[in-house]
Amino acid sequence: MTPRVIFFDINETLLDMQAIKTGLATVLEGDETLVDLWFANLLHHSLVDTMSSQFHDFIDVGGAALTMVAHSKNIALDEKTAKDTIKQYITKLPAHDDVIPTLKALHSAGIALVALSNSSETGLNAQLEYANIKHYFSHVLSVERVRTYKPHPAVYHWACQQANVKNEEAMMVAAHGWDVSGAKATGMRTTFVERPGKMMYPLGLTPDHSIASLNELVSLVTR
Amino acid sequence: MTPRVIFFDINETLLDMQAIKTGLATVLEGDETLVDLWFANLLHHSLVDTMSSQFHDFIDVGGAALTMVAHSKNIALDEKTAKDTIKQYITKLPAHDDVIPTLKALHSAGIALVALSNSSETGLNAQLEYANIKHYFSHVLSVERVRTYKPHPAVYHWACQQANVKNEEAMMVAAHGWDVSGAKATGMRTTFVERPGKMMYPLGLTPDHSIASLNELVSLVTR
Repeated sequence: MTPRVIFFDINETLLDMQAIKTGLATVLEGDETLVDLWFANLLHHSLVDTMSSQFHDFIDVGGAALTMVAHSKNIALDEKTAKDTIKQYITKLPAHDDVIPTLKALHSAGIALVALSNSSETGLNAQLEYANIKHYFSHVLSVERVRTYKPHPAVYHWACQQANVKNEEAMMVAAHGWDVSGAKATGMRTTFVERPGKMMYPLGLTPDHSIASLNELVSLVTR
Repeated sequence: MTPRVIFFDINETLLDMQAIKTGLATVLEGDETLVDLWFANLLHHSLVDTMSSQFHDFIDVGGAALTMVAHSKNIALDEKTAKDTIKQYITKLPAHDDVIPTLKALHSAGIALVALSNSSETGLNAQLEYANIKHYFSHVLSVERVRTYKPHPAVYHWACQQANVKNEEAMMVAAHGWDVSGAKATGMRTTFVERPGKMMYPLGLTPDHSIASLNELVSLVTR
């Protein structure tokens, strides 16, 4: 069945994070594994905020997490430098090779496409413009508007309302098992994209589809 | 003011995690930073479960997270080996040097002490017995009973009910900023323990106290 609307996660799913990995490693003694640790801490603390009824900008949570990771390894890094470094790199990420052909084909097939990201609204728009893919999306949605992060169910319900679609008629596409599982829990259909190094969260709700390349999505949803 | 009850986080706060870092590194090509990445992923996915109305045993979430971290670095590791390795090390962690003197002094001062952990009930009891500190606690509380993880507010409210104390009369002591912030959000008093490499989450709710050694807690709460 063809979904009426396809929601795309952005970071890692559509945009190649290698440039920010290389960039952030410059303030972390060159260790890219510490950048992975930063991203995991960023995601954890975005949900920690929700648990204590707080909300902070994605870059602020990112800056805090980066400072904590640096501290854990005895690397001197103040919060301003941390935030500036993240800002410098996160809005200059290229799209993966399979992204533009896929978005173009889906758009031509008449399927509405929506960007749904944990990035701030300003950051998200800058990211999509830099990657030259903004014009494919009917809606560009940042969690900033609901002041809670994916995979909180409120995000997916709100996003479906914004795109005027029932959850069951929509599909979430992401390279993160937690995003896929969270969307599935709200009734959306889901596709997991197996980006290099990524695997589905084994205990997450099973995705409807799992694909090795985004190119597979076109035939999958237009069958 | 002396709290009527002091709740202690266990992993990292009371128990030294170095042994599990060394142990888990054996299945992660010797890289202890990957063990840090595992723990951050474990914590993130414990909250991801909550967001999609799921709950899994801490070891199960840990095994899933360990498999994902190994996959991200092209290290072959099946889920059974992952879980077995975690189980082998997590119940054999010694207490930090300042733990037994502090628990003894607080216990002698007539303050009720409670263990409150994300570990499973069976795992938590085994941990406290191995470290020879179980007898100091009036209650040994695992989040397994409420089927959601710290820092979800339900955990702290439930724990205070179990110990028959108002949140305002209780203190949470932890080496994790997210635990301190979560407890504070429910009205508890809080003390952050600056274990090596740990710093308070900069955007978290400010703890009432921050101490470099657990020994400082005794004079702090018996003033």
